[in-house]
Amino acid sequence: MPLLGDNDKASSPQHLKSWEEKAQWARAKRDASLAKVKPVLQGVPEENDLPMNCQSLASAVLTSREIEITERYGILDLLSEMRTRRVSVEEVTRAFLRRAALAHAATNCLVELLWDEAIERAKYLDALPEPQGELFGLPISTKEHQGMVGENITSSASFVAWLGKKHGSNLLYDTFWEQGCVFYARTTQPQAIMHLETSSNVYGRTVNPYNRRLTPGGSSGGESALLGMRGSILGVGGDIGGSIRCPSAHVGVYGFKPSLKRISTTGLIAPAAGKETIGACPGPMTVDRDALDLFMRVAVAAKPWRIDPSLTVKEWTPYKFTSPPKVAIQWWDGVVQPHPPMTRALREVAEHCRNAGMEVVDWDCEGLNHQEGWDILSALYFPDGGKEVLNLIAKGGEPVLPLTDFIIKEQPTIKDLTQHELWELCVRRDRYRAMYAKAWSDTAKSGKEVDVIICPPSFGAATPHEHSRYWGYTSHWNLVDYPAAVFPVTKVDPILDPKDVDYVPKNEQDRFVYEMYTPERFADAPVSLQIVGRRQEDEKVLAALVEIERALGRN
Amino acid sequence: MPLLGDNDKASSPQHLKSWEEKAQWARAKRDASLAKVKPVLQGVPEENDLPMNCQSLASAVLTSREIEITERYGILDLLSEMRTRRVSVEEVTRAFLRRAALAHAATNCLVELLWDEAIERAKYLDALPEPQGELFGLPISTKEHQGMVGENITSSASFVAWLGKKHGSNLLYDTFWEQGCVFYARTTQPQAIMHLETSSNVYGRTVNPYNRRLTPGGSSGGESALLGMRGSILGVGGDIGGSIRCPSAHVGVYGFKPSLKRISTTGLIAPAAGKETIGACPGPMTVDRDALDLFMRVAVAAKPWRIDPSLTVKEWTPYKFTSPPKVAIQWWDGVVQPHPPMTRALREVAEHCRNAGMEVVDWDCEGLNHQEGWDILSALYFPDGGKEVLNLIAKGGEPVLPLTDFIIKEQPTIKDLTQHELWELCVRRDRYRAMYAKAWSDTAKSGKEVDVIICPPSFGAATPHEHSRYWGYTSHWNLVDYPAAVFPVTKVDPILDPKDVDYVPKNEQDRFVYEMYTPERFADAPVSLQIVGRRQEDEKVLAALVEIERALGRN
Repeated sequence: MPLLGDNDKASSPQHLKSWEEKAQWARAKRDASLAKVKPVLQGVPEENDLPMNCQSLASAVLTSREIEITERYGILDLLSEMRTRRVSVEEVTRAFLRRAALAHAATNCLVELLWDEAIERAKYLDALPEPQGELFGLPISTKEHQGMVGENITSSASFVAWLGKKHGSNLLYDTFWEQGCVFYARTTQPQAIMHLETSSNVYGRTVNPYNRRLTPGGSSGGESALLGMRGSILGVGGDIGGSIRCPSAHVGVYGFKPSLKRISTTGLIAPAAGKETIGACPGPMTVDRDALDLFMRVAVAAKPWRIDPSLTVKEWTPYKFTSPPKVAIQWWDGVVQPHPPMTRALREVAEHCRNAGMEVVDWDCEGLNHQEGWDILSALYFPDGGKEVLNLIAKGGEPVLPLTDFIIKEQPTIKDLTQHELWELCVRRDRYRAMYAKAWSDTAKSGKEVDVIICPPSFGAATPHEHSRYWGYTSHWNLVDYPAAVFPVTKVDPILDPKDVDYVPKNEQDRFVYEMYTPERFADAPVSLQIVGRRQEDEKVLAALVEIERALGRN
Repeated sequence: MPLLGDNDKASSPQHLKSWEEKAQWARAKRDASLAKVKPVLQGVPEENDLPMNCQSLASAVLTSREIEITERYGILDLLSEMRTRRVSVEEVTRAFLRRAALAHAATNCLVELLWDEAIERAKYLDALPEPQGELFGLPISTKEHQGMVGENITSSASFVAWLGKKHGSNLLYDTFWEQGCVFYARTTQPQAIMHLETSSNVYGRTVNPYNRRLTPGGSSGGESALLGMRGSILGVGGDIGGSIRCPSAHVGVYGFKPSLKRISTTGLIAPAAGKETIGACPGPMTVDRDALDLFMRVAVAAKPWRIDPSLTVKEWTPYKFTSPPKVAIQWWDGVVQPHPPMTRALREVAEHCRNAGMEVVDWDCEGLNHQEGWDILSALYFPDGGKEVLNLIAKGGEPVLPLTDFIIKEQPTIKDLTQHELWELCVRRDRYRAMYAKAWSDTAKSGKEVDVIICPPSFGAATPHEHSRYWGYTSHWNLVDYPAAVFPVTKVDPILDPKDVDYVPKNEQDRFVYEMYTPERFADAPVSLQIVGRRQEDEKVLAALVEIERALGRN
């Protein structure tokens, strides 16, 4: 069966009968794209023989030059090497294509490898008389539902019903393309793009490259698994409840969720187009902190508001601290106690910040009612009671997965609202946001106002599969629309992070999270933290990240 | 019956039986506030003896000193006089209080005169050891539904059902108050705050001070009537379809509708709280162009986004043209042909702009489908089918007025939407906005991009009562959320503005507007124009206004 072609039957599986056949069609299409890899990857174990921690695979499978290209350069250095033509774009592209294929073999993170397209693009860039663009030659991996530059592109957002759906580029990708990047790999997302894990009926489960029994997070978990294998150094995720930050944190890379209305969503496909209650925002996921600023700077410099009238007309203006930032530590959110390695990470970072001369205070959530925040937010996610998503799943004939049930059917707040109920909910949301803003302003009562909050990006490290059933540590910042970055701190350590056997859970969610933990279960998992700023202070969050990493002894 | 007091019966009429009694209670309360004026106004004709054009009344009724204070100063000069204590705040306040009372006698523009409160405030400011605040001593008039600084404040938004409703201040007014202003008069608005005229069952009809047979516009028509009599020099209006610009234009004063999310609406009362489809924005209405920038600068300098999390975090940054702006003239909107005086105003201003060295081009609406824009916008106004407003009117027992019927029941687009229908409508809105943005960007194809559009703020000058049944010339800029200012240009002239007897109307709306016109019917009516900028280019619009007025020979 021809997998890519002009006639409808070849480019869409919707003529097939069962959802299983359609999913099989999609996987065959993906496999065909992977089969183009040359030289063929040698020495990759069969799936059943893969090590639990896949970090050692690269050195066994890739050439030393490929490892050098994909590991040894910072992004700005790599850009500089290509711009000065000391390294060809094609060599870089081929290295990342091969490493992405390896990452897929280890974690099941890809929907499509763009072998031909990427190499053609690389050759084109190499042939230019002068290097052009801020991202000249940079390989960028992309979450599938966001679409792609190119003809014959389809996106399914992992819905069976959408397999073969024609789709074009989007405004953000157009900008990056104009700036000279190379798109080369499209990554998985979970059913409904609304799990903090990454599993779908179409592509199965994506796993964590540090421990295959754990999730790479979600919904941008294809990206994180790929980044965690260094099959990418910069990927594009999207975040409405943690979908950039949770997966970045779970593989120990950097991720940034901008404030809404800075980065365009024009051209992405996802359910609920036109819903205004709560928004998703694309953002960077990367192995290199410098790429966060680069991503934002390039995206905003294009003045996307001239095309997308939902965006704020506002330049990207890097922030500089003239004195050490004042940071507040959120030890817990008042609902669910984080696991021991997360609390240790907070303790260590707080200590480093203090040693670097920063004022460090507590961010006390007791009076801030994060549970009320979740009740509002979960209702805002599905003001139609989840009907559109459930209909789309039904239309594809596929089963509803447990984590889809969790986020729609198991949330007592979710219902199909009348317009007046919707208005009331939005008023509640706005009151909650105003209350939170006041709490932040009130920190100035005892001196300087808090610059950023440091908090967990999850209750713990990457969880065992199907256990991501508490979103509060990321989703709260979507509700109030605060920019937030995650950064790697440490790893789960059986010695340093024993279970607190005396802890008495405060509620059912807390019990679920508490009972999940043993240090052995989370072996090798990276532990990351989150830095949160006030609404629209995106630039300040990235500046604070630099200050805090300096306090940790990083440059 | 005590009209102001602590017990509920005295401060609310809701114990009364009929809507007529409740409205009578409100008018009696208003009259009691006006009865405080001292010295009592002498020489005001009885209502039936009022001249059609009330501009001559001030000189017959007020003292020459009162006229000097209320007419001879620009706002910045007046502020300077008070700040340097050459004129006391109390003297200024008393002059405006008396002139506001006269304006009310002429036009029926007030809901309440704040005699005691304003004089108390003035005395307080005069007694300060040092003048404080950017608005020190400045009298500001206010649209009633926006609320007030002060205890025992009620607002009805002209709904019978809300008469006596407790209401406090709002974020914008708090800012102005902190900056030293004096609130002294609260003005009328029409039923539902959704007519481009100003008539309600509670307060009756507000009329135009240049021609009592004409409307002062609406919904901020109490403000415009007051400003048109110079009973105020700066008022606060609000605009969701033209409610600042239409009334300002109809009395020949300046008005500015900012982009959404620059000025807070926190604390205003109006129907549909929580509706996100389309927003209203407060803004200045003033006799003095300088006050537009002053209003915006002071409001934004307070960083209201720290309290109201719906606002954009963005400083007010005055714009300077380094070369003459490129202006586009919108001769008509493709739906309704403007009346002859409006077309003459456009011609005259275009000519002056050309003479001043500006590039002047046409803004052709033919391909831009403003009618489609109205179909989207009208549906967005009432996504509940108008149920909340109609229920509120029914609850008060009052009749639905014809212009309320017009904007709700007569719009075929308006219905109570499901969530999915709402999403589809928002997608249509966003597509329309993107199309319009592209049309603007495309003006750069033939050289420099257009800086601003000059267009009518209405199909004509102030209309005869009950004739404001076409909103397109203002409401279109609410749909696309473009900032827009109006400024006075000329007056209707029977010689220069004859009816075009050969014109053949293009559609029913065009016929209605065409048939309305004779120059005699619009005698003495001011004619204004509108300057529109791209979304969020508020500062540029005000800078263009200065350039264009300079081209007209004004400073």
